[in-house]
Amino acid sequence: MLDVQNQADTREIPLAKVGVKGLEYPIRVLDKKNTSQYTSATVDLFANLPKHFKGTHMSRFIEIFHRYRNDLSMPMFLNMLADVRRDLDAEASFGVVNFPYFLEKTAPISALPGMMSYRCSYQGNVNAHGRHFTVSISVPVATVCPCSKAISERGAHNQRGIVKVVLELGPFFWIEDVIDIVEKAASSPVYSLLKREDEKFITERAYDNPKFVEDVVRDVYLSIRNIKKFPRFSVEAENFESIHNHSAFARAEYAG
Amino acid sequence: MLDVQNQADTREIPLAKVGVKGLEYPIRVLDKKNTSQYTSATVDLFANLPKHFKGTHMSRFIEIFHRYRNDLSMPMFLNMLADVRRDLDAEASFGVVNFPYFLEKTAPISALPGMMSYRCSYQGNVNAHGRHFTVSISVPVATVCPCSKAISERGAHNQRGIVKVVLELGPFFWIEDVIDIVEKAASSPVYSLLKREDEKFITERAYDNPKFVEDVVRDVYLSIRNIKKFPRFSVEAENFESIHNHSAFARAEYAG
Amino acid sequence: MLDVQNQADTREIPLAKVGVKGLEYPIRVLDKKNTSQYTSATVDLFANLPKHFKGTHMSRFIEIFHRYRNDLSMPMFLNMLADVRRDLDAEASFGVVNFPYFLEKTAPISALPGMMSYRCSYQGNVNAHGRHFTVSISVPVATVCPCSKAISERGAHNQRGIVKVVLELGPFFWIEDVIDIVEKAASSPVYSLLKREDEKFITERAYDNPKFVEDVVRDVYLSIRNIKKFPRFSVEAENFESIHNHSAFARAEYAG
Amino acid sequence: MLDVQNQADTREIPLAKVGVKGLEYPIRVLDKKNTSQYTSATVDLFANLPKHFKGTHMSRFIEIFHRYRNDLSMPMFLNMLADVRRDLDAEASFGVVNFPYFLEKTAPISALPGMMSYRCSYQGNVNAHGRHFTVSISVPVATVCPCSKAISERGAHNQRGIVKVVLELGPFFWIEDVIDIVEKAASSPVYSLLKREDEKFITERAYDNPKFVEDVVRDVYLSIRNIKKFPRFSVEAENFESIHNHSAFARAEYAG
Repeated sequence: MLDVQNQADTREIPLAKVGVKGLEYPIRVLDKKNTSQYTSATVDLFANLPKHFKGTHMSRFIEIFHRYRNDLSMPMFLNMLADVRRDLDAEASFGVVNFPYFLEKTAPISALPGMMSYRCSYQGNVNAHGRHFTVSISVPVATVCPCSKAISERGAHNQRGIVKVVLELGPFFWIEDVIDIVEKAASSPVYSLLKREDEKFITERAYDNPKFVEDVVRDVYLSIRNIKKFPRFSVEAENFESIHNHSAFARAEYAG
Repeated sequence: MLDVQNQADTREIPLAKVGVKGLEYPIRVLDKKNTSQYTSATVDLFANLPKHFKGTHMSRFIEIFHRYRNDLSMPMFLNMLADVRRDLDAEASFGVVNFPYFLEKTAPISALPGMMSYRCSYQGNVNAHGRHFTVSISVPVATVCPCSKAISERGAHNQRGIVKVVLELGPFFWIEDVIDIVEKAASSPVYSLLKREDEKFITERAYDNPKFVEDVVRDVYLSIRNIKKFPRFSVEAENFESIHNHSAFARAEYAG
Repeated sequence: MLDVQNQADTREIPLAKVGVKGLEYPIRVLDKKNTSQYTSATVDLFANLPKHFKGTHMSRFIEIFHRYRNDLSMPMFLNMLADVRRDLDAEASFGVVNFPYFLEKTAPISALPGMMSYRCSYQGNVNAHGRHFTVSISVPVATVCPCSKAISERGAHNQRGIVKVVLELGPFFWIEDVIDIVEKAASSPVYSLLKREDEKFITERAYDNPKFVEDVVRDVYLSIRNIKKFPRFSVEAENFESIHNHSAFARAEYAG
Repeated sequence: MLDVQNQADTREIPLAKVGVKGLEYPIRVLDKKNTSQYTSATVDLFANLPKHFKGTHMSRFIEIFHRYRNDLSMPMFLNMLADVRRDLDAEASFGVVNFPYFLEKTAPISALPGMMSYRCSYQGNVNAHGRHFTVSISVPVATVCPCSKAISERGAHNQRGIVKVVLELGPFFWIEDVIDIVEKAASSPVYSLLKREDEKFITERAYDNPKFVEDVVRDVYLSIRNIKKFPRFSVEAENFESIHNHSAFARAEYAG
């Protein structure tokens, strides 16, 4: 049967990335407390395409990912990308896997349990120079506005925000530990399940601990830099402002 | 040229709705202050299909909507649906137009202007029994939690919420008037542009005026019922809780 | 500690629904082949609120759902809603759980396996008159346009579409069986993994089997009606037209 | 009134970006045929924040953008960012404006008119070294698969795709001209309104002109490079494959 993709191409244009995007797949990832957890992912997989080939072979990306779906620990994710590079005869391979990561979290006073969902993603590439791996972790938090508190005689506006940390690895670490750092840097963590005694505790703790997006970003940045594990990272915070219909945003970057 | 859609169908199954969905179009709607405003819409248009026809003629929906795009006042929207019914030889036609509606709003103390966007939609249907028209208006607001305020020694959690009012018409009314009702029923309206003196004012006003989603829904409901213009309506409020990663929700329905 | 929600309300407005919305949770559901599967869900849970109560107790919804997360078979989902009704002292409870449901599917010629994701949702309510349960299943398919094929000398436009079946139960059935009905009614099923021999087979089979959205809806409707299991159901098809930037849509409803 | 944002910060961490995100605003942009058009935008505006300041003044971003909303031609967009840099006392300012851009397009045979929507964005930054401006234009197209056509005895799978061109300017150009280049590089443009004679024409033209995502990207790349106007650009194509539930993707980059 004719292999159109394998035909020669004369336009002399190499493609940086060719592959599949938006694939929905069940995966299993490592979990500090329970060894592993099942979740659902959205997957992009690419390889570069040299200028002399007309097209890539899209089915090979799926064949490879299918084999790895039940063990997407960070090292296995890079092995998967190395297989993509080899099986596609490519100089470089690239991959992104987005998934919700679930943790049980107990309320601060009642200690009742609820599940929290944290959006995470693995991003990696493999080429002749090595393997590169980046993890992104998004943590919902609560923030009380320091300006609103300082200028108002009573109350202070506050809101939910999302803090996104992107880490270039580096030695192994647990997603749980980064979540912990972020939750400590906010006015308060957020929870799925809170009884009244928890709500009182959180309201007062958050009011006593007001933070701008700028403050949250700087405090997370300091904590991550102090670990001295990550050669490069960024921290972003987005507040869904309760007094506006838009967000407040801040971002810091560390490059060694 | 063969008209496949017009062929006879023997399966004996009438279709409730057939048509186009997700059409993006520039439109012009009425505006209380500036006579009219341009905005961008997402449009669904349907007709029923009797059991003896194989298919509908999708292009006719677009031809009709194209003619009406520059005057989508409420009466013209229904005229457009009447054209759909006629040109498609249908018993009934249906339409939904979603669009952001923009208003200039001044800050409460500084009086500085900013634009606010309110998601609105027109929904209508036309059949042998008449014309039916429903308008949906979504208004972002701020709410302070009465429970959090009552049980805490200081502060109170608050957040952005969205209040959605769906009105069955009824005589003409202005979208602006419904927005006004909703903003008055919340702990505070939200704004695009606020200086510090505005932020202080809003923080204190909201703290003095705590509201559950249940309260907001009931207060909007009362105000709309008191107008005695709308034969049927619903009010929903969704709070993007600052202490959770999910929403609190309430809904009331009025049916005459 | 003060129970603000439990205070009396004098506005005399009962609320149709009060509760939590957009909760992200890991769940386990039944699976025909593997007994059960883990997936990730978005959850809404509501109860009605009589006019004399100021507010509901939002934390109870989470406590109840947390207990049921590891067994959300259809009967257990209704038991969960019965618990909501009881623990919230409500006349009626309501719930929606949306989740991707994953199945392994083999290519038609090469027989290579890949995972497919199908968006499903459970919707139910429990009140003094009984328990009501509805399942929604969305199946991606390929459709070839019969008109384009008939009027063109070569080729025919085709595209991906989504067919959504909503079933009111009724006796137990498997999600897998509904997916099978839908895939047989399209021009072709879609797959995650296809080699060239599969692509040739699908291209020709689809070309030999052109279907409008109207046809797909009617053929699915016929097959489901013939099972005689479901007192009420609807079938919708949406085609992401390859020659337009909008969708073609059709819907049929069965009401006994 | 206390200016908390202006207080000194001792953490010694400069922030790369601080500002507002997700602001929805009505804007007016240039239009080749009609001089200008109104549309609705989502806006992000940022400035850097030196390490010695605690916070930025978020309201100033809105004040500045409000003044420019009625003339967001490309030069005025950069003037707006220069104002942000000046009024925020920043070394660098950044902005992104996303909007649907509408054009009337006539069907290829019937010449009937319909409106098409193209997602565009302006991205810019201003600092001591100058002004940088990038435009992103997304064009929906139809593609017929060359492999499917070559290996099948009849038919060929085809689908809608989106081609995204990102251009670093460079001298002035019209969005319309880039849209034209992309539509010529696909198997066929897509349209809002097509009669049967148009559908026949497009079906046959597309079948005679099969293109992989790789081909579309390379042909757009060649045309844009040949204009010799843009110091840097990228071209991406994403096909919503009709035989899969995921996309095929290709990307090329030009860097002078």
